[in-house]
Amino acid sequence: MSGVESAGAFRAPVVGMVGAGQLARMTHQASVDLGVDLVVLAKSPEDPAVLAGARALYGRADDPEALARLAGLADVVTFDHEQVPNDLVVSLEGSGVAVAPGSRALNAAQDKLAARRLFSEAGLDVPAFAQVGPDARSDIESFAAAHGWPVVLKARTGGYDGRGVAFVAEPSGVDAALSSLRGADLLVEAHVELACEVAVLAARSTNGEYAAYPTVATLQEDGICTQLSMPASLDSEVRLRAHDLARSVADLVGATGIIAVELFVEASGTVLINEIAVRPHNSGHATIEGCVTSQFHNHLRAVLGWPLGDTSLVKGAAAMVNVLGGADGVDPRSRLVDALAVRGASVHLYAKEALPGRKVGHVTALGDDPSEAVATARRCASILGGA
Amino acid sequence: MSGVESAGAFRAPVVGMVGAGQLARMTHQASVDLGVDLVVLAKSPEDPAVLAGARALYGRADDPEALARLAGLADVVTFDHEQVPNDLVVSLEGSGVAVAPGSRALNAAQDKLAARRLFSEAGLDVPAFAQVGPDARSDIESFAAAHGWPVVLKARTGGYDGRGVAFVAEPSGVDAALSSLRGADLLVEAHVELACEVAVLAARSTNGEYAAYPTVATLQEDGICTQLSMPASLDSEVRLRAHDLARSVADLVGATGIIAVELFVEASGTVLINEIAVRPHNSGHATIEGCVTSQFHNHLRAVLGWPLGDTSLVKGAAAMVNVLGGADGVDPRSRLVDALAVRGASVHLYAKEALPGRKVGHVTALGDDPSEAVATARRCASILGGA
Repeated sequence: MSGVESAGAFRAPVVGMVGAGQLARMTHQASVDLGVDLVVLAKSPEDPAVLAGARALYGRADDPEALARLAGLADVVTFDHEQVPNDLVVSLEGSGVAVAPGSRALNAAQDKLAARRLFSEAGLDVPAFAQVGPDARSDIESFAAAHGWPVVLKARTGGYDGRGVAFVAEPSGVDAALSSLRGADLLVEAHVELACEVAVLAARSTNGEYAAYPTVATLQEDGICTQLSMPASLDSEVRLRAHDLARSVADLVGATGIIAVELFVEASGTVLINEIAVRPHNSGHATIEGCVTSQFHNHLRAVLGWPLGDTSLVKGAAAMVNVLGGADGVDPRSRLVDALAVRGASVHLYAKEALPGRKVGHVTALGDDPSEAVATARRCASILGGA
Repeated sequence: MSGVESAGAFRAPVVGMVGAGQLARMTHQASVDLGVDLVVLAKSPEDPAVLAGARALYGRADDPEALARLAGLADVVTFDHEQVPNDLVVSLEGSGVAVAPGSRALNAAQDKLAARRLFSEAGLDVPAFAQVGPDARSDIESFAAAHGWPVVLKARTGGYDGRGVAFVAEPSGVDAALSSLRGADLLVEAHVELACEVAVLAARSTNGEYAAYPTVATLQEDGICTQLSMPASLDSEVRLRAHDLARSVADLVGATGIIAVELFVEASGTVLINEIAVRPHNSGHATIEGCVTSQFHNHLRAVLGWPLGDTSLVKGAAAMVNVLGGADGVDPRSRLVDALAVRGASVHLYAKEALPGRKVGHVTALGDDPSEAVATARRCASILGGA
């Protein structure tokens, strides 16, 4: 899909994106460089991508009619989130719509149990897990009898940013954990003693190309990714294992576009798949300034079947720190001028109301090494956050 | 101007930009990062910035009513081109509108004769020059008698991309040169034997800060800047002289926002001011990928009186090559997929119809040294241009 040349008139390729949050917002910025016409399926004119000037259709991601309208305008349909019913994606594919990623890849990102089974059956390392049935307490206790306490309960679908996950230290904590998860379909997992968490971000083009970014070290606080740095400091064997796993996962689910594979690294060097996303991802935000080609450019290139861009770092290291709405209710944007005084920091604001704990922006910095980059980004993000 | 916090509601700062070409398009991309609300005064919904999603008012840059409407929406008015009558800018200032750059700086960019006089009177080096009066042939011949042939004729206002300039090798060429310039008000200048042409781009904030980018080597072909590389390879003395001149010019004209000072460097090491622009400039396009803070981000920061961002290179060198509409009439966008296969190149398309010789995009590349960066950018731009 390279745009169509007819009678001298050029038609820009059209990418339809379901969702209009900050990922669509930054994809829109990239689309401008490439002359791609991005159309987003938005909920409101106040959505971050619409405020950035992306062309918008309005509708719900679970409304077949809205998805069909988007597909009718677009050469390919893609996503800024995974909250779209998989059967609707299957229908789109059935009616001949190019969807990238496709329903199979989306399902692996949407359904944690299906993903665990898929990866496990393919011989890829995942934490020990089991489905939790109607007799939840008994299933959890049997699992713990085999694998030990603590365990982790996860909602099979719909969880993000720490929601839908409960840590259970011992049998007495099961009831509280179950009630916090409010009757969701669950799986139970062995708790992994982490040496660190890393992510491998890669682009996989519908033309068959695959290109991975340098491994990212992620820091989760209260289940939210708050900081990342590239490259992660890893033994070369661990790094290779992480990249091999990501490649295997991408091929297995048939991802197209960006895929983020979040990984647990144990002190022993064992690497386990945590979860995946098949869209631009928070763990890739530092690629905007940090890499030759950002994840947003590469997502567009990949879903359009175009050659992928160079994923290498432009400098020794890059770091990103998220900006969250603070408990004090002060909008981080009101502190922007002070934050911009931090030399070397690049601020990205999402034009979102600063509800407490909500991601409303991020800060990137480059450095000769990750700690230098992290320090710069932290200093700037702290000012925005009122620290 | 940091946006206004009242009753919990945050209002984004509004920048009004006169013009909606590719400079406004790239300023719009930067405005999204900073949460700045950019409103452009556009001629048509097909203008590059409007197609990128910038909020638009429609009107002419020489229509006082249109400028007043823009000013009424904006915290500060700025420009993507200089084709706005200076008296209208003076009027805006007189009515209390914040305009950055102001009329004094704009005038130095608009009126080559006024600029030459201003700089010359301040003791800054410029080529020998004289005004050409109604008896043009006689004025030109007297000038040449004093300074020698060849000479260069320049339209006092309105010239760009090689238009409004005529090289005159000898007396017999005067008539043809005059007729090519079609009765414009002219100045005549000594022809400078160039060792190279360079530009110094800098941001000057309304808060008083000043930050210059690394010196840029520019290559002009048929009067159009077709290629640039950073840093320019210059003796440190010449580099310092270039930067001193740029700083003096910026202070002298009271520039706010980005100022580009184009300079002639003679083999002797003498540095002469050629011309200036007081807006984001073609010679700064490589700052998007090449520098920590792009000229577009720094333009917004400067006109809003915010702290300026780090202007240093992120890697050893950066280069940019313009993409022009070709004589064959084939739209470079139809060759994008092949061009994207050039590893390390970043393509920026302006969504403009590819008229022959028109700038319709540019390609940036980074490298350890300028020649490596230039080679990558050239390879990609050549494919887009059909070479």
